[in-house]
Amino acid sequence: MTFIQTLMNSKKHIDEVDLDISVADNVAVRPRLERMRFLEAGVEANLYRMLYSHGPGNGTALFMPFDQKSSEHGPGHEFLWERDDATAEEINLKGKGSADIRAIAELVNSGNFSGYVLHPGNIRQSKHLFRPDIPLIYKIDGHITQPLSAGIMSTAGTIEDALKYGASAIGLTIYPGGEHIKADLERAAEIIREAHKVGLVAVVWAYARGPGLDEKIQLKDKNGEFQGMTQADSLYWTHYAVSIASGLLGADLIKTKYPLKIKPDNRRAYDAYIDSLAKKNSSMIAYKYLEPKDAETALTMEQESLRASLVVQAAPYSIVIFSGGPKLPGNPTETLKKQTEILMKAGAEGAIYGRNIWGLPVKEGLETARAVNDVISMPEFHRKLTEPRFTGY
Amino acid sequence: MTFIQTLMNSKKHIDEVDLDISVADNVAVRPRLERMRFLEAGVEANLYRMLYSHGPGNGTALFMPFDQKSSEHGPGHEFLWERDDATAEEINLKGKGSADIRAIAELVNSGNFSGYVLHPGNIRQSKHLFRPDIPLIYKIDGHITQPLSAGIMSTAGTIEDALKYGASAIGLTIYPGGEHIKADLERAAEIIREAHKVGLVAVVWAYARGPGLDEKIQLKDKNGEFQGMTQADSLYWTHYAVSIASGLLGADLIKTKYPLKIKPDNRRAYDAYIDSLAKKNSSMIAYKYLEPKDAETALTMEQESLRASLVVQAAPYSIVIFSGGPKLPGNPTETLKKQTEILMKAGAEGAIYGRNIWGLPVKEGLETARAVNDVISMPEFHRKLTEPRFTGY
Amino acid sequence: MTFIQTLMNSKKHIDEVDLDISVADNVAVRPRLERMRFLEAGVEANLYRMLYSHGPGNGTALFMPFDQKSSEHGPGHEFLWERDDATAEEINLKGKGSADIRAIAELVNSGNFSGYVLHPGNIRQSKHLFRPDIPLIYKIDGHITQPLSAGIMSTAGTIEDALKYGASAIGLTIYPGGEHIKADLERAAEIIREAHKVGLVAVVWAYARGPGLDEKIQLKDKNGEFQGMTQADSLYWTHYAVSIASGLLGADLIKTKYPLKIKPDNRRAYDAYIDSLAKKNSSMIAYKYLEPKDAETALTMEQESLRASLVVQAAPYSIVIFSGGPKLPGNPTETLKKQTEILMKAGAEGAIYGRNIWGLPVKEGLETARAVNDVISMPEFHRKLTEPRFTGY
Amino acid sequence: MTFIQTLMNSKKHIDEVDLDISVADNVAVRPRLERMRFLEAGVEANLYRMLYSHGPGNGTALFMPFDQKSSEHGPGHEFLWERDDATAEEINLKGKGSADIRAIAELVNSGNFSGYVLHPGNIRQSKHLFRPDIPLIYKIDGHITQPLSAGIMSTAGTIEDALKYGASAIGLTIYPGGEHIKADLERAAEIIREAHKVGLVAVVWAYARGPGLDEKIQLKDKNGEFQGMTQADSLYWTHYAVSIASGLLGADLIKTKYPLKIKPDNRRAYDAYIDSLAKKNSSMIAYKYLEPKDAETALTMEQESLRASLVVQAAPYSIVIFSGGPKLPGNPTETLKKQTEILMKAGAEGAIYGRNIWGLPVKEGLETARAVNDVISMPEFHRKLTEPRFTGY
Amino acid sequence: MTFIQTLMNSKKHIDEVDLDISVADNVAVRPRLERMRFLEAGVEANLYRMLYSHGPGNGTALFMPFDQKSSEHGPGHEFLWERDDATAEEINLKGKGSADIRAIAELVNSGNFSGYVLHPGNIRQSKHLFRPDIPLIYKIDGHITQPLSAGIMSTAGTIEDALKYGASAIGLTIYPGGEHIKADLERAAEIIREAHKVGLVAVVWAYARGPGLDEKIQLKDKNGEFQGMTQADSLYWTHYAVSIASGLLGADLIKTKYPLKIKPDNRRAYDAYIDSLAKKNSSMIAYKYLEPKDAETALTMEQESLRASLVVQAAPYSIVIFSGGPKLPGNPTETLKKQTEILMKAGAEGAIYGRNIWGLPVKEGLETARAVNDVISMPEFHRKLTEPRFTGY
Repeated sequence: MTFIQTLMNSKKHIDEVDLDISVADNVAVRPRLERMRFLEAGVEANLYRMLYSHGPGNGTALFMPFDQKSSEHGPGHEFLWERDDATAEEINLKGKGSADIRAIAELVNSGNFSGYVLHPGNIRQSKHLFRPDIPLIYKIDGHITQPLSAGIMSTAGTIEDALKYGASAIGLTIYPGGEHIKADLERAAEIIREAHKVGLVAVVWAYARGPGLDEKIQLKDKNGEFQGMTQADSLYWTHYAVSIASGLLGADLIKTKYPLKIKPDNRRAYDAYIDSLAKKNSSMIAYKYLEPKDAETALTMEQESLRASLVVQAAPYSIVIFSGGPKLPGNPTETLKKQTEILMKAGAEGAIYGRNIWGLPVKEGLETARAVNDVISMPEFHRKLTEPRFTGY
Repeated sequence: MTFIQTLMNSKKHIDEVDLDISVADNVAVRPRLERMRFLEAGVEANLYRMLYSHGPGNGTALFMPFDQKSSEHGPGHEFLWERDDATAEEINLKGKGSADIRAIAELVNSGNFSGYVLHPGNIRQSKHLFRPDIPLIYKIDGHITQPLSAGIMSTAGTIEDALKYGASAIGLTIYPGGEHIKADLERAAEIIREAHKVGLVAVVWAYARGPGLDEKIQLKDKNGEFQGMTQADSLYWTHYAVSIASGLLGADLIKTKYPLKIKPDNRRAYDAYIDSLAKKNSSMIAYKYLEPKDAETALTMEQESLRASLVVQAAPYSIVIFSGGPKLPGNPTETLKKQTEILMKAGAEGAIYGRNIWGLPVKEGLETARAVNDVISMPEFHRKLTEPRFTGY
Repeated sequence: MTFIQTLMNSKKHIDEVDLDISVADNVAVRPRLERMRFLEAGVEANLYRMLYSHGPGNGTALFMPFDQKSSEHGPGHEFLWERDDATAEEINLKGKGSADIRAIAELVNSGNFSGYVLHPGNIRQSKHLFRPDIPLIYKIDGHITQPLSAGIMSTAGTIEDALKYGASAIGLTIYPGGEHIKADLERAAEIIREAHKVGLVAVVWAYARGPGLDEKIQLKDKNGEFQGMTQADSLYWTHYAVSIASGLLGADLIKTKYPLKIKPDNRRAYDAYIDSLAKKNSSMIAYKYLEPKDAETALTMEQESLRASLVVQAAPYSIVIFSGGPKLPGNPTETLKKQTEILMKAGAEGAIYGRNIWGLPVKEGLETARAVNDVISMPEFHRKLTEPRFTGY
Repeated sequence: MTFIQTLMNSKKHIDEVDLDISVADNVAVRPRLERMRFLEAGVEANLYRMLYSHGPGNGTALFMPFDQKSSEHGPGHEFLWERDDATAEEINLKGKGSADIRAIAELVNSGNFSGYVLHPGNIRQSKHLFRPDIPLIYKIDGHITQPLSAGIMSTAGTIEDALKYGASAIGLTIYPGGEHIKADLERAAEIIREAHKVGLVAVVWAYARGPGLDEKIQLKDKNGEFQGMTQADSLYWTHYAVSIASGLLGADLIKTKYPLKIKPDNRRAYDAYIDSLAKKNSSMIAYKYLEPKDAETALTMEQESLRASLVVQAAPYSIVIFSGGPKLPGNPTETLKKQTEILMKAGAEGAIYGRNIWGLPVKEGLETARAVNDVISMPEFHRKLTEPRFTGY
Repeated sequence: MTFIQTLMNSKKHIDEVDLDISVADNVAVRPRLERMRFLEAGVEANLYRMLYSHGPGNGTALFMPFDQKSSEHGPGHEFLWERDDATAEEINLKGKGSADIRAIAELVNSGNFSGYVLHPGNIRQSKHLFRPDIPLIYKIDGHITQPLSAGIMSTAGTIEDALKYGASAIGLTIYPGGEHIKADLERAAEIIREAHKVGLVAVVWAYARGPGLDEKIQLKDKNGEFQGMTQADSLYWTHYAVSIASGLLGADLIKTKYPLKIKPDNRRAYDAYIDSLAKKNSSMIAYKYLEPKDAETALTMEQESLRASLVVQAAPYSIVIFSGGPKLPGNPTETLKKQTEILMKAGAEGAIYGRNIWGLPVKEGLETARAVNDVISMPEFHRKLTEPRFTGY
């Protein structure tokens, strides 16, 4: 009997039973390039560059995204991290703050990343600042934060441009839970198909979002008072979103949010939603037991890893990376290292960290990147290849 | 620690701390043609014509737009500025009022502009009135002021026609904040891509607009009473819009509105919106401190320049021009000169002034154009080129 | 100071100041074929045929439209005008009433028109009834009067068919103010571009229409009671519509409604709308003063001409014709003659009259056409050409 | 028994029997626009313009070609006819010689032609010199005189350009007898089809040419000595070429060379060729008897007309015009008048004269054009129309 | 009576009569930009840049071609002209010899040329060395010197690339006289049409060439012995080629070889060919009299100018430039100046000199360019513009 069956049978919550997580088990069930025979040779070559030639290597990855400023979050980011360590001449050459694309290039060029993410406009204008061999993920779509949000990304780039600019992959975002989900999935499927035809890795940002998740529409009581919501970063939604990206769309590499514990205010709404799902599908009830009995209780690192491993295992033939981790106390770099360890133990292939790295002065950012690299490249997380063509024999 | 970090750390507003703005710093971080290696040779040639061969030159620009009459504002403009100084023969040749296209041509032909903006219909019918060497920005889209506005521009022209008519650039407008934002960004991205393929400069009017900004939808209190709005010409929205045009779309030249102080009536709504953004993204709070403590307090020229410099720096690899400036008291031409000085000190490459110039009798308009030219072409705003091919060595 | 500036400065209405209208001035600023160098040679040839080879000539025009029965108004037209002067044999050959296409052909073949307008179906079935040399305007789109109207025309024909049937022009209708305005302008722009490529004159019916104009959306008071509307045939909307057709779309020939006085019931709503526009754009206030002080006061012929001249001058490089005129008392043919005189004095190139001519028995219709021709062809309205190729020298 | 049957039965030559040619008979069998119901309405309109609205009218035509200089004959033409009567200013405006396009325009604008012929390059550069209403035949193909000739025309223009430049017709040349005849006919058929689709009249220059006709390949005796040739301008070849243009290709208007008597040197070769044809098809022998018994004998005007009438009647549903006539002694203008009379009596719709008119000083050219017009417009050659739409009843 | 008529009537050769050449007359009949109304606005703008904004200006031009090395002549050019004035570092930066593209760029950037000519490969690789504002002629086709030559150019580039690289014009070569003449003219016509659609100037190298001209096919006597040839650079062929490029193809700018005297060895063949043409077309005989009576006699400068003026006047609406001039004794730069003066007096708009300039060390090349500029920019050769938009009034 598995651990989750135990939970369901005993109707106990994750914090009421003992846990014994084995890193080896989680890593063992993950995809190996040599077994991903379905990959077009070009996709394989590009994935190999990300997982074995650049960054921590050995089948793992650390990516640097820089698509926030040009869409979702806007340039307000810059305010936090002005660049103190720059000489006048450097300011001239590299911009004033660390969110300046010139500082990003400096980080990417020296920070041992497996690849970096840019939007079409930034690629056009700044690709020449980046080392040509480091894999570029051409983020083909973008989305603006505004009062009446579109609920679906704008496809602002093209596969042809991705090739022209030498990208190794295209990236795109789907919003399960959004009101335009039909168009969104069709849009995503088409981009992925076209990418595969020309040998590009397809990277999907699988982000649950939309009415019913982070807005307050249906989760009200009879008096119309807000009763909480299901949380886009819940285990249920991250688990589901990864499954869609992998099983429906065939993404090669999936970026997911970290599955966070349901906040106390939302617990009632979440449980109700899970209950309603379980009526049709009894095993759904497990999501409930995968939360701590008391919503205020913190999860242990083992519990976090177990939950994250479920998300990872929803995509047995896609590379899965996380864009963050659970909130942990302490020194920021130490926190990031711990979060990364949790993810890696869960079987993820790596992480993608933006503001936590480029939000620091460049030197500090490089130190943090090195620290995270150290975690990811630990031998226990290695995905060794044995095929002669990979090993040279 | 930077000025903005100081504001955030001390929770002080922009008018509560001392400011020391350096023009040299702002100009130093701006793009130079010789470093914009990503430009297709044709785009470079056309941009060079605008920034170095025509108008104030030395990497700066002053443009004359005349797309208002044929769409947005309608011909009602003409009423104000009838042409008193015309003989009967001139009326025959050049039209009755200064908003007549024939008078516009006279201004453009002699006013030392870097380029001018016309709509497709006017280009077809009147291009032959304009000196052939002055760069034309073919405004490919238009929008009509009517009770139920479209919220997205109509693409009324084509790239092929832009070429046929000898344009140096195409211009288009995006409306971040609009309800058709997805289609709008995709429309814009495609036009820009096609323009770049054929060597045309892509000019984007980045104008926040739409529900939540200038209408009264969600910014009401519980009783449904209007609590102000976020203001399309606020620092937040102009900053954001420029960032999108640059990083997501790769615009070569961005026309933005000047970032105005939040009006007292809107201050509460604006602060609330910023607060909500800061919950996800703490640095966003800076927008609040970049307003004066008391909404009624006027900003000094240094404060204006600092705020405008943020907007400019959101596009480190695009040319940025402003379509107006802060309201200042005094003689109109003197006001325009002061506004222009603020913009140039902020690091902008120049300005685009329509009604303030063509709204005057032609002779006066030429004088005003000369006065603005004098400001823009001051040595401290020069963007010198050093590459041999540019300098002749 | 011009008349309109005088109105604005003195805050007087059009009927409170003296008027001195000069036909010569209005005609002087109108386009001449020899100065319209932008016309493709084929467009020029077709326009020349309309303005100089057929109809009243000398650069003026009188058109016969017959697109009402096949779309907008339906066949109910026929009921009114049975044909009194027909023998049994003629009825057999030429139809029963004057709205029968055979009677239309008879009028067109002998009535000295500059051209005639038909829909694709009528062209296919009846083109062979018309003299082959008389210019045909192929009305490419149509619109049906029905409870839930489309708000945008259906493009029922093609440019290729227009050519096959020997048309000299294509005609199309735009509805500024309509809810599909984005698509409408893009549709129009494309048809016009394609027409120009193959030498066809592009004729635009510029008809304001839609929510906010002839429906009752926002012009209600707090209690939701109707407060009037802005009127599609107001000076504001006709002026604006002509400006769009010319400056944005590049129409060669624009058909506009006559700018009528605001009806007393609508005056309050109109003034309110103008006020709201004037807040952003002060010169807009002129529209208010261009109405009589008291909405019940009738306008004089001079006042009518001045208002109409504004509409005409919104298109300094397009031919402008009116589809009707102000309501005047008296004998219908005399009324038509007076209306035509007003339009011609305003500087219009001519008129397009349908029901007022084909609604009569054929003989009378021909007499009315002759009377209107006499007005239009008065020497003071001539647009003389001086180029050698036009004059034979 | 017909005249030709008489010739064949009696084995007499055309000059051995009496002839009674009736103009009325020849004209009676010619096509009338009202019976050419197969014409697309656009083709009809354009043909109407040529045959009734411009030039001699009444269904007849006189065209001015100017396609020689830009291809076939080259600019050497200019040498003969320098313009002595020009002032310095006129030279500036109208060129130096009568073969200058500016002088051609002067002739066309005032010479009462039914249309004129230009090549694409000249149309692009000089169309604006010509009255816009005079029908233009856009000569879509050209051919260069050079030692190794192509034997087939280069299609240098397009139907779309013909439309853009306002042409009423396209013109093209076929070379029956040429070595590329397969491609040539297919090329011609496609151009004609496309022209008809868009309402353009298709004019075919049907010119026999090529090996076996005007070169010396196959008409040698056993010793290889030249024995004459069949002559491209023989009755056989002109008759045949017109038949192909009409029956195979459906040309609307056919330009043919005048059928000249076989030259004495070629008579033997011609007779031999006809004999060989007659073996398969006995009636072919008539061509032999349609030559005078003695090759040195001159043909009378009646004999010329009879022979020309055969060529004309080979196209009972196409308009046929001749590009020259039999050599006649006397004053050039008188010769041209006589030649024209012969053609018109033969039933042709008219003529196309180039060098004989534009080779003269402009004033003289205009006089000659008037003289030819006088012949063509004689009442006996009128093609009256009786349909109501044509007559105005 | 004109000079040529005098020659023909008196049967005298050009050196047997007195000559009175007027520069003013030759310049007066040349095209002016303001009268070339047929130019698309984009073509006009690009032509204006070449004729008025760059190089000698005032409607004249001097171009620098560098398409020889990449096709026709091959890189053997480099051997002749090593670069003497270069330091070791400069050699490293700018290449070893003056035929190196880096030295060409140096010449173009500083030599006051109206434009320069490069092949697609050189443009892709070296466009960034050239000042962006100097007009580039994108030579779209090339031809290789090899034993079995193609006889028609290979179209190696595309219009889209010409635009991407910011070209002002496309250049192409036709070979009248070539065995692929049909395909060649059709190829040229299509490229020119497409260029015009997108506002590019169409430059045609009109170079007679092929069997019968520079090979020895039909110009043999009965015994098969070579009797000379007609010479591709003869007056007949240069005159004809320019006429084709202009009248058939509509080239905006025509590059022709200079019309050289027939060499004594070819005189007999040339005269025979002219005689054969004159049989069909009597005025052709003039070509014979335009040679000196005795083939050995040198032509005077006046005789040269007269002959060249005929070539120029074959294109009354195209700009005509020469690629060389008559052989003259003396210092090379002085020779070039004299040749240029002859051409300019003949009414040509300018010249295009390659090896005579880039074949020298850079400094000397610049001096020679300056000397030629001085000749071309003499006031008597100016083409003044009078339209307000050109003059600023």
